[in-house]
Amino acid sequence: MKDKAVSKPVISRLPRYYRYLGDLLDNDVQRISSSELAKLMNLTASQIRQDLSTFGNFGVQGYGYSIEHLYNTVKELLGLDTMTKIAVIGVGNLGLSLLNYPSFLNRGFEFVMAFDSDKEKIGTEINGIMVKDVAELPLFLSYNDVDIVAITTPKDAAKDLVKKISVSNVRGIWNFTNSDLEAPAKIYVENVFLTDSLMKLSFQINQKEILENFSKKK
Amino acid sequence: MKDKAVSKPVISRLPRYYRYLGDLLDNDVQRISSSELAKLMNLTASQIRQDLSTFGNFGVQGYGYSIEHLYNTVKELLGLDTMTKIAVIGVGNLGLSLLNYPSFLNRGFEFVMAFDSDKEKIGTEINGIMVKDVAELPLFLSYNDVDIVAITTPKDAAKDLVKKISVSNVRGIWNFTNSDLEAPAKIYVENVFLTDSLMKLSFQINQKEILENFSKKK
Repeated sequence: MKDKAVSKPVISRLPRYYRYLGDLLDNDVQRISSSELAKLMNLTASQIRQDLSTFGNFGVQGYGYSIEHLYNTVKELLGLDTMTKIAVIGVGNLGLSLLNYPSFLNRGFEFVMAFDSDKEKIGTEINGIMVKDVAELPLFLSYNDVDIVAITTPKDAAKDLVKKISVSNVRGIWNFTNSDLEAPAKIYVENVFLTDSLMKLSFQINQKEILENFSKKK
Repeated sequence: MKDKAVSKPVISRLPRYYRYLGDLLDNDVQRISSSELAKLMNLTASQIRQDLSTFGNFGVQGYGYSIEHLYNTVKELLGLDTMTKIAVIGVGNLGLSLLNYPSFLNRGFEFVMAFDSDKEKIGTEINGIMVKDVAELPLFLSYNDVDIVAITTPKDAAKDLVKKISVSNVRGIWNFTNSDLEAPAKIYVENVFLTDSLMKLSFQINQKEILENFSKKK
């Protein structure tokens, strides 16, 4: 098969499918039609049929989808059937919340090590995960399999970290610094920018007023 | 002016413009052409011109944009020139990281109160913000101006919270529960789903392998 890229909107919807299908399974539902699933997920039935057809032929006309089959397929597509190893850099509140997040482990994610520069934190354990000196990161990455590095440090520290990560086998950066990182093309960067998210919400709730005031001034 | 809606992709890009323009100002840059800004932000010059023209006429042909003017306009558009009041529900690690986030205050956001159900936490203060019993939320919302409620509780608790928020004057929910919330149309919901984000990254780094294995089995 050719190295076929999957479109970004479809990728973004996969985790959501996974969540809804998991909930249905938990409630012992076995089959669902595209229109029922569409209603539940607030999508259109044709969008669902189109998304799922990207990956194969799941539905039987008039009989709906087998939820378990669909769930396992989406799970496989998301790479959740193999263990993905994560190192966390920065053990502030955000790093702590990642290391203590309850549902990562049963989704196929495993934290292997945490790093910080704070001497008070180095050598401690969080939820069973050791905190090492961030100076040891390059050595650690050269001797251990790490798939993803989560960066929760301030943005000024992140630039140097990306350089070190770039010469390792790490394939993904989970970026919480609220600034874009320049990583080589072989490394995917997924951003979680809390300030941007809050600003977007602020715009949404004030949109009407803002645009009215704005047009008056023009 | 009519209640003109702004397209989602433009909204999503506004915080990013705000960040880059702020950095340029910090570095004493005063003017920039659309092509220079495009290069910096990894967009095309025509996209930048199109985005900015949605909100007015900023550029002078051959002379570029005034960064300060543009910065202030984006700031105003994002509603950052007025104070937005936020209450945080759930004072776990995630709630703590929000309450301690350094850059919210100087972006026009103010935390007014935190809520939790844990008796050990009720009555304590975090970064100057009092933690109240979540049972007092409805009363608090009826007597105080709160624009946004951040929900960092488990998803089972969130459903009941949304009901209580729905009868208040709150206009936005910042949702960290990793599950979709059913809120009335007058309330905007902005989701930050960490598990979804990590699954997306997992798919990206495994995409090639996943699709190859997947096509072999078909």
